[in-house]
Amino acid sequence: MKINGQTKKGIITMLEELKETVFHANLDLVKHHLVLFTWGNVSAINREKGLVVIKPSGVDYDTMKASDMVVVDLETGKVVEGDLNPSSDTPTHLVLYRNFPEIGGVVHTHSTYATAWAQAGIDIPNIGTTHADYFHDSIPCTDAMTKEQMGEYELNTGIVIVDKFKKDGLNPVHTPGVLVKNHGPFTWGKDANEAVYHAVVAEQVAKMAFISFSVNPRTTMNPLLIEKHFSRKHGPNAYYGQKKKA
Amino acid sequence: MKINGQTKKGIITMLEELKETVFHANLDLVKHHLVLFTWGNVSAINREKGLVVIKPSGVDYDTMKASDMVVVDLETGKVVEGDLNPSSDTPTHLVLYRNFPEIGGVVHTHSTYATAWAQAGIDIPNIGTTHADYFHDSIPCTDAMTKEQMGEYELNTGIVIVDKFKKDGLNPVHTPGVLVKNHGPFTWGKDANEAVYHAVVAEQVAKMAFISFSVNPRTTMNPLLIEKHFSRKHGPNAYYGQKKKA
Amino acid sequence: MKINGQTKKGIITMLEELKETVFHANLDLVKHHLVLFTWGNVSAINREKGLVVIKPSGVDYDTMKASDMVVVDLETGKVVEGDLNPSSDTPTHLVLYRNFPEIGGVVHTHSTYATAWAQAGIDIPNIGTTHADYFHDSIPCTDAMTKEQMGEYELNTGIVIVDKFKKDGLNPVHTPGVLVKNHGPFTWGKDANEAVYHAVVAEQVAKMAFISFSVNPRTTMNPLLIEKHFSRKHGPNAYYGQKKKA
Amino acid sequence: MKINGQTKKGIITMLEELKETVFHANLDLVKHHLVLFTWGNVSAINREKGLVVIKPSGVDYDTMKASDMVVVDLETGKVVEGDLNPSSDTPTHLVLYRNFPEIGGVVHTHSTYATAWAQAGIDIPNIGTTHADYFHDSIPCTDAMTKEQMGEYELNTGIVIVDKFKKDGLNPVHTPGVLVKNHGPFTWGKDANEAVYHAVVAEQVAKMAFISFSVNPRTTMNPLLIEKHFSRKHGPNAYYGQKKKA
Repeated sequence: MKINGQTKKGIITMLEELKETVFHANLDLVKHHLVLFTWGNVSAINREKGLVVIKPSGVDYDTMKASDMVVVDLETGKVVEGDLNPSSDTPTHLVLYRNFPEIGGVVHTHSTYATAWAQAGIDIPNIGTTHADYFHDSIPCTDAMTKEQMGEYELNTGIVIVDKFKKDGLNPVHTPGVLVKNHGPFTWGKDANEAVYHAVVAEQVAKMAFISFSVNPRTTMNPLLIEKHFSRKHGPNAYYGQKKKA
Repeated sequence: MKINGQTKKGIITMLEELKETVFHANLDLVKHHLVLFTWGNVSAINREKGLVVIKPSGVDYDTMKASDMVVVDLETGKVVEGDLNPSSDTPTHLVLYRNFPEIGGVVHTHSTYATAWAQAGIDIPNIGTTHADYFHDSIPCTDAMTKEQMGEYELNTGIVIVDKFKKDGLNPVHTPGVLVKNHGPFTWGKDANEAVYHAVVAEQVAKMAFISFSVNPRTTMNPLLIEKHFSRKHGPNAYYGQKKKA
Repeated sequence: MKINGQTKKGIITMLEELKETVFHANLDLVKHHLVLFTWGNVSAINREKGLVVIKPSGVDYDTMKASDMVVVDLETGKVVEGDLNPSSDTPTHLVLYRNFPEIGGVVHTHSTYATAWAQAGIDIPNIGTTHADYFHDSIPCTDAMTKEQMGEYELNTGIVIVDKFKKDGLNPVHTPGVLVKNHGPFTWGKDANEAVYHAVVAEQVAKMAFISFSVNPRTTMNPLLIEKHFSRKHGPNAYYGQKKKA
Repeated sequence: MKINGQTKKGIITMLEELKETVFHANLDLVKHHLVLFTWGNVSAINREKGLVVIKPSGVDYDTMKASDMVVVDLETGKVVEGDLNPSSDTPTHLVLYRNFPEIGGVVHTHSTYATAWAQAGIDIPNIGTTHADYFHDSIPCTDAMTKEQMGEYELNTGIVIVDKFKKDGLNPVHTPGVLVKNHGPFTWGKDANEAVYHAVVAEQVAKMAFISFSVNPRTTMNPLLIEKHFSRKHGPNAYYGQKKKA
């Protein structure tokens, strides 16, 4: 049997590693206190094969196993492997992978502070270097969904995200996350672990901004400082952390 | 000896399971950080026998045993089995069971954020999908009790809840909880575990709404989005989680 | 050797139990997250002997032993037993014991929310039944200390508390705690354990009131409801918890 | 081989102890919940040798060892010992050591509440005795950096701190910490452990001030009370804690 031009055996062996990664990344959401019950999901993509590994829908983190991860086709969304239903948010993840070719992992949570800002329906302004180290601009909040878009809700959740990035000229690598209005945050990264990292950053940044605006409603940051901090960790002149050996 | 037409032995065997369930549901309140000291209680009902199992009053969670659970009669409130006094909130639980025939478990806590909204005396507006997934409308806050109602305080706590639901035309299955003004939340569900689940949701939703209104006092949500999210998990077209085998 | 008319041996044997109680009550402050570092202290009194047992000053909770507790004379404040300095707040504790004859234990903490209200310099209004179950009225905040009073700071801290209770006609049994302006809470009870319990209540009530006033600045409670709730747990008609066997 | 006039062997033996201290002080930041991921660093100085020991950049706290600590020269900032890059904030630490000769340890974190005040760009006013026990005045917030200063960002972070202290006539021993505008707190002390202690105090004080100003925007404290409390723990008449044996 061949799927996307590979023997099934070859695919499975390769995806077993990705399943392990996605499984552990889902548990990391719990470790970082980003999820209650089953309210979160992580996926990762194998771009070569056009397959996405994602958490099953509504399964308890305590009993979940790596082998419960579900494999779906990037284009059709059909389940290629797995006995359980994939996360109900799968169509959103797939829209993001199809439109943001640079990303390798996606996370969705209902983490407290980021979700509260999403409910408030406003961008989280970039007011500190903690924010600027990972997100170049505000963490944007999508427009409200139209009545028509609610028909295919999860698909259109992805579409309102992509529309927001197009409309505002945002680069998904420099802005690795978004707030879906009245819903909650999606974040992404080069792989599942970086997507989880950005979910933690978004929650912390949301919490600190809530406090900052409470003590000073007119909080702002000089855009030059944003530029400086972002470039410490990104781009050709990055100098944070340990340099890789040549 | 017969109670409600059953031999005592038969009742005990059946209720032992319910006692275990109620006991563990009470401990889950602690696990989810919803109670300080003894400030919370869970009950569940056996509708067939007209008996309710509830936590004893003021007993420490650390030393409490399943066999300490108290069995009371749904109609009279009299203790049918158990050496300890039932929770002082028992009359409230019984009013809810008598008026909301669909429910199988009831929870009362003084959880921080839900209690703070109850003290504030206002409904928690439905401003996000986390809320809409479990509560169709606002989490309502009851009217203040009249001087006359304070005589039989716990009984009338139940009555002001039921009055609120009647007056506003609320469906207790679609709105599985309430804030009692200046007191705290009561939640319910098809059984004790679902009632605890809804207590956790109410607390989280209360916390997030507090933050949302702090960062944007004019936070709102499109009612169509509420409808969409609620129906993802409820009703004939629900599609969240793993489908039960036919 | 005789102290207050008792042989020294007799006193020591009796106070060993009180030292154990005070030692464990101090550790309970840590368990309930009410103290950072060494910022809290518990004492208890033996009224018959006129002796107070209190935590030593600035000693780490991790290494502290029951035998480190210091015994001081109620009237003179002199150390009767113990190798370490007593808490620097000892003079405050002694003023409370001398003026409130009904109390058997005193606690001082810098717990986050109660201290924040003390800094704000305003009473915590009684707006919920959680509060009314333990504190009949507002948790009062003392007046600012005069320049003259700052000379004997800890002694006068006790005096401004007592003055506040006299001026407002407050009963220290019905109002088992206070906020010292710009400083933090003191609570008390019939023994050290009840004083700790009231410290936990004060912190939780302070946290919830902060949230309530944030979501509704005009939060209030009907005084009749305060009366009802307070009398559920206090006075001749109390009915909360398990009745003591006659 | 000689460095600063010592044999290399001699230096290493001496600095091994300082590395252990700095390593454990870094772990204490985690224990006190002041850091997420790698977002914090502690250093300490050996003044005699003019060498500073500091955490490596971007290394995980879970796998970090005492031997990973990096030794840099106080004047040149060059790495004297260690295989890893020193913290990217090293130039800031060095400016502080060069300008504040009384200090022996420096801490930088992005702790939630202190960072939120730094983002808000305002001083944390001294409104309580918890604050006054450790910081004589407000915890000051630096001016914004100029465009020119952003070129050597970390060096100039140190310089804006020192400028703030000069301009306002602040004594770094009486004000053992600062908020860098739009960035986060730096604290210091006579050694690494005291610097960590002051980082914990700054975070707690920032949290309580946020709450105090929320419940009472006009919160203030009598300057005389500040004086009294600060002198309880500092200066010739300090009387808090256990006196050192002569």
